Amino acid sequence: MEKIPILRLGSFLLVSIQVDMHDRLALALQDDLTAKIVEHRARGVLIDISSVEIVDSFMGRMLANIASMARILDAETVVVGMQPSVAITLVELGLSLPGIRTALNVDRGMELLRATRESEEPAVGG
Amino acid sequence: MEKIPILRLGSFLLVSIQVDMHDRLALALQDDLTAKIVEHRARGVLIDISSVEIVDSFMGRMLANIASMARILDAETVVVGMQPSVAITLVELGLSLPGIRTALNVDRGMELLRATRESEEPAVGG
Repeated sequence: MEKIPILRLGSFLLVSIQVDMHDRLALALQDDLTAKIVEHRARGVLIDISSVEIVDSFMGRMLANIASMARILDAETVVVGMQPSVAITLVELGLSLPGIRTALNVDRGMELLRATRESEEPAVGG
Repeated sequence: MEKIPILRLGSFLLVSIQVDMHDRLALALQDDLTAKIVEHRARGVLIDISSVEIVDSFMGRMLANIASMARILDAETVVVGMQPSVAITLVELGLSLPGIRTALNVDRGMELLRATRESEEPAVGG
């Protein structure tokens, strides 16, 4: 099962990272995700890392890359479900995940994406 | 990362199975899921098996157990994202997943859960 599934939730995509990431898997995820963003015309990407116990600079770079690619394809990325211990480690390591937005859980992440999208849409009849 | 994350989506819970299931992991999932159903008062459970390439009788029994436990806790279970090859294998093996409802993807599964729940709710002011 060496493939990270990408689930569609309305106009958003959800990726739940549950396995240790390595180069090949990260590249495959980037390919799949960008293809799905285009295929489903997704407006946002939620990356759930609630199972992730260790975030190192590789994972940080991967998340940043995904966010940049999604942005170019006009989709916002929000990382959700970070464990408290991961947040502590990130700060202690000086990795502040620049350019990546976070939310407590999937529900809040979806709210954030919806709010961002609504504020960006031109007002109807305005 | 030997833990399957359970994501909350409004009043539903989403479980995405990405790793090979074994006894201990299946038991842990049952414990976690039943606890989360109670904690979040969830009305439905979506189990995504889009990464699963082989469904055997063990997986079938696990899904059936989860559906039964959820039902007792007043939550409906829908299995989503089954790969065509898995459906073919299941039928060829004579495993028809009795008592488990399925939907093509997460979106359709959520529609199914919403429709089921709405038809069950007593009409307001009726």
